[in-house]
Amino acid sequence: MMVVMTPGAGESQIQAVVSKLETTGVHVLVMPGKLTTAIGAIGDPERVLELGLEGMAGVDRVVPISRPYKLASSELAHHEPTRLEIAGRRVGGGDTFCLIAGPCTVESREQTLAVAWTVRKAGASMLRGGAFKPRTSPFAFKGLGLEGLKVLAEARAETGLPVVTELLDVADADVVGEHADVIQIGARNMQNYALLEIAGQLGKPVLLKRGLSSTVDELLMAADYVLKEGNEAVMLCERGIRTFEVATRFTLDILAVPWLKLHTHLPVIVDPSHAAGDRRLVEPAACAAAAAGADGVIVEVHEDPEAALCDGPQAVYGRDFAAFAKRVGAHAAIAGRVLA
Amino acid sequence: MMVVMTPGAGESQIQAVVSKLETTGVHVLVMPGKLTTAIGAIGDPERVLELGLEGMAGVDRVVPISRPYKLASSELAHHEPTRLEIAGRRVGGGDTFCLIAGPCTVESREQTLAVAWTVRKAGASMLRGGAFKPRTSPFAFKGLGLEGLKVLAEARAETGLPVVTELLDVADADVVGEHADVIQIGARNMQNYALLEIAGQLGKPVLLKRGLSSTVDELLMAADYVLKEGNEAVMLCERGIRTFEVATRFTLDILAVPWLKLHTHLPVIVDPSHAAGDRRLVEPAACAAAAAGADGVIVEVHEDPEAALCDGPQAVYGRDFAAFAKRVGAHAAIAGRVLA
Amino acid sequence: MMVVMTPGAGESQIQAVVSKLETTGVHVLVMPGKLTTAIGAIGDPERVLELGLEGMAGVDRVVPISRPYKLASSELAHHEPTRLEIAGRRVGGGDTFCLIAGPCTVESREQTLAVAWTVRKAGASMLRGGAFKPRTSPFAFKGLGLEGLKVLAEARAETGLPVVTELLDVADADVVGEHADVIQIGARNMQNYALLEIAGQLGKPVLLKRGLSSTVDELLMAADYVLKEGNEAVMLCERGIRTFEVATRFTLDILAVPWLKLHTHLPVIVDPSHAAGDRRLVEPAACAAAAAGADGVIVEVHEDPEAALCDGPQAVYGRDFAAFAKRVGAHAAIAGRVLA
Amino acid sequence: MMVVMTPGAGESQIQAVVSKLETTGVHVLVMPGKLTTAIGAIGDPERVLELGLEGMAGVDRVVPISRPYKLASSELAHHEPTRLEIAGRRVGGGDTFCLIAGPCTVESREQTLAVAWTVRKAGASMLRGGAFKPRTSPFAFKGLGLEGLKVLAEARAETGLPVVTELLDVADADVVGEHADVIQIGARNMQNYALLEIAGQLGKPVLLKRGLSSTVDELLMAADYVLKEGNEAVMLCERGIRTFEVATRFTLDILAVPWLKLHTHLPVIVDPSHAAGDRRLVEPAACAAAAAGADGVIVEVHEDPEAALCDGPQAVYGRDFAAFAKRVGAHAAIAGRVLA
Repeated sequence: MMVVMTPGAGESQIQAVVSKLETTGVHVLVMPGKLTTAIGAIGDPERVLELGLEGMAGVDRVVPISRPYKLASSELAHHEPTRLEIAGRRVGGGDTFCLIAGPCTVESREQTLAVAWTVRKAGASMLRGGAFKPRTSPFAFKGLGLEGLKVLAEARAETGLPVVTELLDVADADVVGEHADVIQIGARNMQNYALLEIAGQLGKPVLLKRGLSSTVDELLMAADYVLKEGNEAVMLCERGIRTFEVATRFTLDILAVPWLKLHTHLPVIVDPSHAAGDRRLVEPAACAAAAAGADGVIVEVHEDPEAALCDGPQAVYGRDFAAFAKRVGAHAAIAGRVLA
Repeated sequence: MMVVMTPGAGESQIQAVVSKLETTGVHVLVMPGKLTTAIGAIGDPERVLELGLEGMAGVDRVVPISRPYKLASSELAHHEPTRLEIAGRRVGGGDTFCLIAGPCTVESREQTLAVAWTVRKAGASMLRGGAFKPRTSPFAFKGLGLEGLKVLAEARAETGLPVVTELLDVADADVVGEHADVIQIGARNMQNYALLEIAGQLGKPVLLKRGLSSTVDELLMAADYVLKEGNEAVMLCERGIRTFEVATRFTLDILAVPWLKLHTHLPVIVDPSHAAGDRRLVEPAACAAAAAGADGVIVEVHEDPEAALCDGPQAVYGRDFAAFAKRVGAHAAIAGRVLA
Repeated sequence: MMVVMTPGAGESQIQAVVSKLETTGVHVLVMPGKLTTAIGAIGDPERVLELGLEGMAGVDRVVPISRPYKLASSELAHHEPTRLEIAGRRVGGGDTFCLIAGPCTVESREQTLAVAWTVRKAGASMLRGGAFKPRTSPFAFKGLGLEGLKVLAEARAETGLPVVTELLDVADADVVGEHADVIQIGARNMQNYALLEIAGQLGKPVLLKRGLSSTVDELLMAADYVLKEGNEAVMLCERGIRTFEVATRFTLDILAVPWLKLHTHLPVIVDPSHAAGDRRLVEPAACAAAAAGADGVIVEVHEDPEAALCDGPQAVYGRDFAAFAKRVGAHAAIAGRVLA
Repeated sequence: MMVVMTPGAGESQIQAVVSKLETTGVHVLVMPGKLTTAIGAIGDPERVLELGLEGMAGVDRVVPISRPYKLASSELAHHEPTRLEIAGRRVGGGDTFCLIAGPCTVESREQTLAVAWTVRKAGASMLRGGAFKPRTSPFAFKGLGLEGLKVLAEARAETGLPVVTELLDVADADVVGEHADVIQIGARNMQNYALLEIAGQLGKPVLLKRGLSSTVDELLMAADYVLKEGNEAVMLCERGIRTFEVATRFTLDILAVPWLKLHTHLPVIVDPSHAAGDRRLVEPAACAAAAAGADGVIVEVHEDPEAALCDGPQAVYGRDFAAFAKRVGAHAAIAGRVLA
């Protein structure tokens, strides 16, 4: 940490900060400048942060100079990329691309099996589908629940595709853990710490979506909540952030992909469907994700989006998905990856 | 809802939208224009939204023309302002101002009782204090838990101040419900629907903080989750939103206060401490909240902020709090309110 | 400046940074830590920034530790608050409150004179009014131009109120400078440096509006452009920033008011009209500004807003303005200020 | 336009809105609903907007249902994509990809010629380089001015590459127009209307950068300012927007690329350098732009970025540029485009 004093801070104020820092055992270096004095504190940033130095007389700012995340860091914790293997599909490691596809919501057995076969034939690695749906209004459709999980399990049994589905409520942890191959934590719950810990304890890989106004630093700290439970199988998912632009549903932060590849060992997946909110933008965005170095995409597909119960406008038509997969796969191939 | 067609949409595309709308029983009106055709759908917006019309050929946009929230609306549900009475303190209704104050975190019995007496003597209506703390990193201090709740209960017994404290995890609902007078739902959990429903069932007033990137519409929909459990005692809390500006910790959305007073019957509280992140800005922000028509503020106070375990830099000094309360109260008085 | 190295940076990389820093004559201090090394550079931050150290091998980040603005700083340049006197009205200095009011646009002689008398009688200090209007679309009404300036000059002659009007184009500098008492630079032009320099040379006070996505640091750097021309009469204006929230036209950054009062000697004015976009929110926001310590507000008033050519929905009714002024003045009085 | 009344609006309020709308000659349709009444106004949206209906009693909102931009629209004005030809390079039209590269700033004749040859040999279509630089602080280096323009002209004479350079000030229009092949309007000036109009009159293609907090709608309206001068040769440039995320310099809005391709006939260029602010992210972002369907990228390249006067950390090394161009070109090829 670096403590920056105000231009007018006096010697006694500087000394008070130094004394306080020294109580924590960090190494302290005073750097007098023409205008302001800066005081470096080398050591445990957590302890320095908790001193609350910003409130002391003469202190202008406290500037962090080290990473706030730990277990998810490729620099501090884990230098090699994490490579998951999920029902025979490899994710992470730099040479595969993972195409996760399926309906927003499980609406019925027929709909789900039809989509599952469609995406499998086109080369998808995993099946996505919601049984428990988070809805902004309490009066909207919330998914089929347990019945939906059973339909997904049947789709896996038939097609062999592992299943990604969202865990929304601690109370459902056991039943979701039993039916899912990958536990999804949605954007709204990225900082629901109780849920993160439970997800970390289920012994299944976790797909962690970035909160819609969370920084990438915060995403990695949320991953730390899962990793500290001893679960190393975490996939991060960029799904668009909230900005002033309303022409698209969210703003897909494509730069987050290479940034994350630099700073974490965890695989990075992109969800172009929720970011775009309009199917005409989903394929270009998925291609961009592959070109930017993502380890995969998670895409919504529906045979008849006009009849979908949820998010139909952003679903790719089942009949278009093979061409979609081919195009995205071609960009992934240039980035040195084969479909998982 | 209003469906806007693209400029090139043909008659058959328009007719397809009309037919689809008619399946839901809404009243449909076609409005042909020079450049584009708009189609009005008057009736249940939820059902129209779920049609997924944006995906149909020739459809450009679907524009909502009615409120997405219901129970929290002052226009649709509840024309008179909601007036709560909490241990003899009135909140809401337009003639009182509620000063909630106390430490960020319960650190010890001595610290909490000292602050409780300080804020009570200065005219506070309620005591705030965290026993369970949400922390971005899993490696930070998380509060005293049950022991903290007991300290708060003791402070209430001594000072008579009702206690506001955060519920963070469904697993703690009973114990928090037992010790708290007001259940706080934090910003990170504004869309943790399982938690909202449990909070609605505890039979205690709920202080619902706005998510740091949630719109005011979404705040009111989150309130709907609590209200639909039959709990009418909900206070909304503006606590700063996340924007590009980093000079302050968050951007306090002061316009949200009068906007909410126009659109909801629920009381509106402002948290200037978390928004500012710097105690020098807290008093001006609290005065602004009172002047803008808020029903109260919730403020962090500490006798010795430099020694605080959490958020010290934004805590008002205990010795300054009486002057703080007087200044804020003077602005509230001009807005026609007396301290609760 | 502080240069933070990556965790894996080697000794030779650290030495390369030190050598490069030493070419600029700054004082260099190496701070080795457990995880990373930080290198302090005390001296001219501009020269260090221009070294482009972020691109060097082993460098993780370059963190500024001093202010980027200079002339506008209350710490570096000018410890006493700047106090302007404009046609007998005092602005700045902490004991006056300046009420600037008038129509969005000068539409006609009659309209402008009527509003001018209305606001003067209610206690306004200055008259605002647009002759040259910036419009997002080139097909919208752009103001009366020179004719509008003449109407404003006539209103000043009749009422004695000094006139605030916007300079939009370098080509109009002379004519605006001749007719205006205060030159307004609009939000869209906050970083139009040619215009800032011209405005600084006209010898008239400048009201500088914050860009709708400009940080307060950038606002103060923009002020530096005017100040460096030798013009010390600059008023800053917070007018709402662009965020994800669309319930109001912009998000009024009320915390910017006390933040600016801490960091600059220049007077701070708030424009609640453009931020709110809805007249029902303008009075609460203006009261909040006064309570937060602003030196004044600039408000749109119209005798018949439904007939206004521009921004009618946010204009306060002329008939309501006396009550408005009284209410805002009462909050200013608590903050220790009298109407200018 | 659609006027939405409040739930409590009475018949006389509805009638007043209808009467007011009818004064403009638009077609009016009243749509009574269960909760609220909506009133459609089909015709000239500009005239309806200027009525200021939001301020009328009983009016809740006025919702636009048609496009605010006109000349830039692919639906209203110009159905075929615009195809420019600049010194033999084709831009736009869907089958070429334009690689614009060069230094941030012209620092010297040697540096500029060296980079120009480097990028030409690697397949660049045009040379970029700044002679007049916009700087946030007035105390930073502002470019070589006319001397820089002459160096660029010499580089063009030697390499045959057309030159893209920024026009910053109306006063420089003639000299920039004389030396440049493409006039760049920077992000800070996207709404500097005087500059847009002058740029439109110079008879040269214009590269218009999106303002850092401008919506895509506003970008197209800014393009309308140039187009209305009779200049059809406008290229749009996405260069990152300002959001809460600070891990990267700006947030590159990759979805804006396919959105713009749907809504405008103008070519779309992406600037990954300024968005990223870190050269390690520039190639992935440029590849993403090509994959998303952009018509080109504009990239900063420097032979010795550590010695660059401006933005060195984001400059691609000259020695890496051939590989960069090959990789980006491969993604463009999958999108059906050859290097221009």
